[in-house]
Amino acid sequence: MFSLPNDVTIIEVGPRDGLQNEKKEVSTEQKLLFIKALQESGIKEMEITSFVSPKWVPQMADAADIVEHVQQQGRQFVLTPNEKGVTRAIEAGVKSVAVFVGVSNSFNLKNINKTTEQSMQELKPIINQLKQQGYFVRACISTAFYCPYEGEINVEDTLALCKEFASWGIDELSVADTIGMANPQESYSLFSYLMREIPNVLMTAHFHDTRKMGLANIYAALLAGVSRFDTSAGGLGGCPFAPGATGNVATEDVVNMLHTMGVQTGIDMNLLCKAVSIIEPSVSRPIETGMYTLYKMEQ
Amino acid sequence: MFSLPNDVTIIEVGPRDGLQNEKKEVSTEQKLLFIKALQESGIKEMEITSFVSPKWVPQMADAADIVEHVQQQGRQFVLTPNEKGVTRAIEAGVKSVAVFVGVSNSFNLKNINKTTEQSMQELKPIINQLKQQGYFVRACISTAFYCPYEGEINVEDTLALCKEFASWGIDELSVADTIGMANPQESYSLFSYLMREIPNVLMTAHFHDTRKMGLANIYAALLAGVSRFDTSAGGLGGCPFAPGATGNVATEDVVNMLHTMGVQTGIDMNLLCKAVSIIEPSVSRPIETGMYTLYKMEQ
Repeated sequence: MFSLPNDVTIIEVGPRDGLQNEKKEVSTEQKLLFIKALQESGIKEMEITSFVSPKWVPQMADAADIVEHVQQQGRQFVLTPNEKGVTRAIEAGVKSVAVFVGVSNSFNLKNINKTTEQSMQELKPIINQLKQQGYFVRACISTAFYCPYEGEINVEDTLALCKEFASWGIDELSVADTIGMANPQESYSLFSYLMREIPNVLMTAHFHDTRKMGLANIYAALLAGVSRFDTSAGGLGGCPFAPGATGNVATEDVVNMLHTMGVQTGIDMNLLCKAVSIIEPSVSRPIETGMYTLYKMEQ
Repeated sequence: MFSLPNDVTIIEVGPRDGLQNEKKEVSTEQKLLFIKALQESGIKEMEITSFVSPKWVPQMADAADIVEHVQQQGRQFVLTPNEKGVTRAIEAGVKSVAVFVGVSNSFNLKNINKTTEQSMQELKPIINQLKQQGYFVRACISTAFYCPYEGEINVEDTLALCKEFASWGIDELSVADTIGMANPQESYSLFSYLMREIPNVLMTAHFHDTRKMGLANIYAALLAGVSRFDTSAGGLGGCPFAPGATGNVATEDVVNMLHTMGVQTGIDMNLLCKAVSIIEPSVSRPIETGMYTLYKMEQ
């Protein structure tokens, strides 16, 4: 039997990554009920919203409202794409900021109309200032394995980007298989490498379930020593490059796998599924994750 | 990086395990087109039907017709529950027979109204005769990890049952997580143990995806040295104890994971997805596996 970490931290990204591409308009009230229910299930870290242009992501137009009304419990992240977003987030009173950049230049250009280098030049002084003022900074590394335009990503490029962030004193790296193409061998290999090369930053793995390898990749990352995972309640979210496909790996299925392997998360499965049932009527797709399907059968 | 086998054999169980609980009546012609398309995709071993009572499993009433019309290519299994089934199968002209028994007594009683011991007593002379006559015999071990009635199964009980079959000279053991509850640590642990204790029988792993751990369990079984997997095209099938849940782990998603890790299967992904598209109109649930969803988007 392989040894696993005793405890794992789940970073719930449903309210942000899960809902940002949702076509139905989800009310602020519904989002707040969802977030509250997730907190009550025992989730301690969460991406609650993002300060992006409402023109591009109308679903996140209520970011300041969300921040104002969410109960402070554990760590609440907001995602910000640029200086303007960071300023709005800080004015709203956040303590933990997530920034993002793609290893793939083509992806970064499509996503935020900047090269990866331009993004990094812009982020450097922002992060410097955030760290001086005591904020917790998380850097989300998109397309760390594969890019829909460039194909396979060179691990050295991913490492270089992560190292640059680390040199700026950020607290956490969330390294993402954005289009759900990585396999368990690649997951094990990249995370082993990154953790060996960058030992002093919290290392988080972020998988999408497009090709159903999400849990296999998480298992492999656990074997590599990763103990932080981004997941989305109900498997909400979806890669814009694979519309029909499921999105983020589902929190309830990850938590079940962890618990049955004796890994603690501090999360109550029943309350977690209850949180999923709160958001289900607000989204346009039926939720058919493993544990939520079983939960509904028992109701 | 962990070392993996170079080649894996897929035993396609869709036409039997996948369709047996299907509520819509699937015509013999549709089944034959499905099987032919699966063979054309490169699948070499397949459970094509079962000789069970048409009263209990009406979907398999055309077993003799299926056997008569399927092209002999590689290895075609038929599943048989008892002496009567074996006799019918042999009269129909099969060369490879699969028998099944549950490690869990309660499950075996519910399933075929016999204790596990009664099943084994009945099977012993049948298998003895089949082996004397040169048939290939596969033994399917149900509830090898968990039982819906008895909970966790003692690994020693699973081992004892497998060893008894091995002592009768059977060719293959297909060890199943019937209700999709096993986790990757358990998969690794049980298969490592069985392969060490029973080195001279082909060892096959059979996973259901009820809790979405199917691919993770297959990855763990690969690390334990397993190189044969039962899978079902389109993820067809469903555990009768979890009606809404997905059934067998999907062939196309398993094959994709294997191919991207450099493990060969001899199966063509495009032709495999074409086979899924042939059966999709005949089943009552939309097929939403990872690779088939991506395939449909490209059409």
